[in-house]
Amino acid sequence: MAQVAAIIGGGVIGGGWAARFALMGWEVRIFDPDPQAGRKMTEVLANARASLPGLSDVALPPEGQISFCATVEQTVTGAHWIQESVPERLDIKHRVFAQIQSACAPDALIGSSTSGFKPSQLQQGAARPGQIFVAHPFNPVYLLPLIELVPSPANPEDVVSRASAVLTAIGCHPLRIRKEIDAHVADRFLEAVWREALWLIKDGVATTEEIDDAIRYGFGLRWAQMGLFETYRVAGGEAGMRHFIAQFGPCLAWPWTRLMDVPELTEELIDTIAGQSDAQSGAYTIRDLERIRDGNLVTILRGLKARDWGAGRLLNAQDRRVEVIARSLDDIADLSAPLLTIDRAVPLDWTDYNGHMNEMRYLQAFGDASDRLMLMLGVDADYLAAGHSYFTAESHIRHLDEAQAGQRITITTQVMLGEGRKLHLFHRMWAGGRLLATGEHMLIHVSLATRKAISPGPALATRVARVAAAHAGLARPDGAGASVAARQG
Amino acid sequence: MAQVAAIIGGGVIGGGWAARFALMGWEVRIFDPDPQAGRKMTEVLANARASLPGLSDVALPPEGQISFCATVEQTVTGAHWIQESVPERLDIKHRVFAQIQSACAPDALIGSSTSGFKPSQLQQGAARPGQIFVAHPFNPVYLLPLIELVPSPANPEDVVSRASAVLTAIGCHPLRIRKEIDAHVADRFLEAVWREALWLIKDGVATTEEIDDAIRYGFGLRWAQMGLFETYRVAGGEAGMRHFIAQFGPCLAWPWTRLMDVPELTEELIDTIAGQSDAQSGAYTIRDLERIRDGNLVTILRGLKARDWGAGRLLNAQDRRVEVIARSLDDIADLSAPLLTIDRAVPLDWTDYNGHMNEMRYLQAFGDASDRLMLMLGVDADYLAAGHSYFTAESHIRHLDEAQAGQRITITTQVMLGEGRKLHLFHRMWAGGRLLATGEHMLIHVSLATRKAISPGPALATRVARVAAAHAGLARPDGAGASVAARQG
Repeated sequence: MAQVAAIIGGGVIGGGWAARFALMGWEVRIFDPDPQAGRKMTEVLANARASLPGLSDVALPPEGQISFCATVEQTVTGAHWIQESVPERLDIKHRVFAQIQSACAPDALIGSSTSGFKPSQLQQGAARPGQIFVAHPFNPVYLLPLIELVPSPANPEDVVSRASAVLTAIGCHPLRIRKEIDAHVADRFLEAVWREALWLIKDGVATTEEIDDAIRYGFGLRWAQMGLFETYRVAGGEAGMRHFIAQFGPCLAWPWTRLMDVPELTEELIDTIAGQSDAQSGAYTIRDLERIRDGNLVTILRGLKARDWGAGRLLNAQDRRVEVIARSLDDIADLSAPLLTIDRAVPLDWTDYNGHMNEMRYLQAFGDASDRLMLMLGVDADYLAAGHSYFTAESHIRHLDEAQAGQRITITTQVMLGEGRKLHLFHRMWAGGRLLATGEHMLIHVSLATRKAISPGPALATRVARVAAAHAGLARPDGAGASVAARQG
Repeated sequence: MAQVAAIIGGGVIGGGWAARFALMGWEVRIFDPDPQAGRKMTEVLANARASLPGLSDVALPPEGQISFCATVEQTVTGAHWIQESVPERLDIKHRVFAQIQSACAPDALIGSSTSGFKPSQLQQGAARPGQIFVAHPFNPVYLLPLIELVPSPANPEDVVSRASAVLTAIGCHPLRIRKEIDAHVADRFLEAVWREALWLIKDGVATTEEIDDAIRYGFGLRWAQMGLFETYRVAGGEAGMRHFIAQFGPCLAWPWTRLMDVPELTEELIDTIAGQSDAQSGAYTIRDLERIRDGNLVTILRGLKARDWGAGRLLNAQDRRVEVIARSLDDIADLSAPLLTIDRAVPLDWTDYNGHMNEMRYLQAFGDASDRLMLMLGVDADYLAAGHSYFTAESHIRHLDEAQAGQRITITTQVMLGEGRKLHLFHRMWAGGRLLATGEHMLIHVSLATRKAISPGPALATRVARVAAAHAGLARPDGAGASVAARQG
């Protein structure tokens, strides 16, 4: 039975939580008195469905059901995780926690999305303070992995570790904060930059667009993959971190920020900022900007994933936790059918100007299918390190039908020949029962030292022969052996 | 004749400038008294050569010559751009500017890499103050586009606009700062975050690694593509920027940062930071981290380029400025040979675990070649918007030799048939005279409304027929019409 998440407050943040839980297979119940809540949720969910499933290179569990409830009490009854995302007023939050705790299970986990309040403040006057903690997400919640998990001394260790396990299971990175503090960690940085930015605008040094450019053309690109300290460690060069600190230490006494002081947020300053922001981004609607942002984030995250670094490494770890496709021949009970080698959603950034999956992505998916077969055969990182691999010598792809972003695709792989240096594969790509494409490939076993063809050793040869023999009775696939020219007439 | 850049101070920053100028075709002369300067420059240049050329989808000009000079005066004589990157001490900088101006041309451009000093401070006591301005880069200089261009009132507009043109020509984004201010704009944000981070470490709230994770798993991913204000505009949702400011305005009065105060940088605090940084990143050498960083940046930048957004949009604009391949058949004098459709370096992120260009990237390059042929034929964004396009029905790729990151490759395209709905192409990929791969493709002209095949209109049909006729006399390519199975025996 699916686990149940109760979402109290369904705005941008609550909606993001709801989408992430649902797409990770949880049943989701939402309480939000806003009459527009249903429409807003539908829009958040559309963005999330287009972007989140394709971040994974494996299929996610079936999407959980989402429903709206009439009261807080109904929403939280039977819920395993309860997420509070109501406005940032302590009196409102206290009232909501009282309603939640009047109906929820004593062992349910209650996270608050608060940006600023400490957990001990949230817990004041609660029936069971140890059940409430801060789980502070970052927008868009369905794409960004960071959750600041902030307990107070009142939270039992069991609550914190169970919370951490749930967040990890839904693809987040719970960053446990060691001591509670106003605004936790990340928002303290954002607040510092925000205050400095207000000064620069007020003093006419830079506009909102110039400030954004100063971030996204420079250190923003660094911070997407390394943070402050690792970046500075590299900048310190061979002399290292200690040298870097010593070099820039004196600046602490210099007037390099205005943050000893805070600008007054006058109507005039608000007008200036709003006007500059219109000039900068007004050509796009908020919905446009959301889709642009999500597409950019998917691209960056998938790029980091291919490099197994930063947030991309988190995604790879998540894939390993949820994947169901075999990693070894020994895990496959029946080898006689074509092997399932890919089961995934089409990522947002695999589509092109024609509005469908781009031709190179078909080869990427077929290449991933070949890589998975390699893994099943024992051609893994250790095998490569020992000096041998398979190179693709030749490929033939037939495009039979189109695929769109978010669509679930599978690939089955038939071994047509596995003898000596040669491994002849035929992949079929499916969307359910619809055949999208076929890929026929000749792979050659090589020495990575000489870059020349060489027969595999007996262990690998035996595994290859085992699959080839199991597939020997399969019918020759339609389209195998075809050439581009043959269809020309 | 190549333009000449003089680099005064060849550390991490000066070396980065030298690499960028040289790879953009400038002759580079370096002055640096450090006996290790030559070795360090070689290492920076190796990183830059592996990463920068492949950021472009077109070939860069031939690399400029790099040489070391014995004196500042020799270095700057005849130079068009002089970049000062000596230590951050005003007395040293003043002495260096006096040496530079004693020998350089009066119309040479003199940029300073200073992080903190205002241009008016640098200009104090100079022979020609109007020649000196701030051109503040971000590490790695050869990859990050941002340059803060800060003039003082003493700089004539002509100097600022010429400086801006040079920076744009070498692929940078000159961000002109409206009023000089200590630490310019971006470093004021970095300084604010740095000061806050020192407090968090000193108070035991978070370690260096936890702070880095709080950045790179959350807002760092946002800031690589949108900055502070555009991100908040989206976060404000339908209510917009004004609502967002009003909502978070009160926080300005709350203790959300410690920046009213500055921590003392004691030996103990330095030890704590250096120790935490070792625990976090000590498994990698600085050289490892540089290569990891560059690979990540190339991946992020190329991802944004494919989306034509942020720093990726800057790169596309730069490609348009330097590309030499024809955009229209009318620009090609002789159509009778296969057409040059690609001339580029292999990007760093096109290589895989086998240490060479990954198979899918061959199809990407062939797809790009087909796209360029489309453009030449007039199948551009307007043509698509009018409802028609070509879809690839079938592809056959032969991998004949390997390619490594940074290697220059070209593709020539032969039209084998262009009749009715069909366009039959044969691409050859070269590394100089070495044939790396061939790609044979059948493209079908389609209606984007019905997604079905349909003949092109007379204008396009005429252009296709013109190329097909010009190529009719070419020999049938070796490997055309081959199938994977045919080579199986």
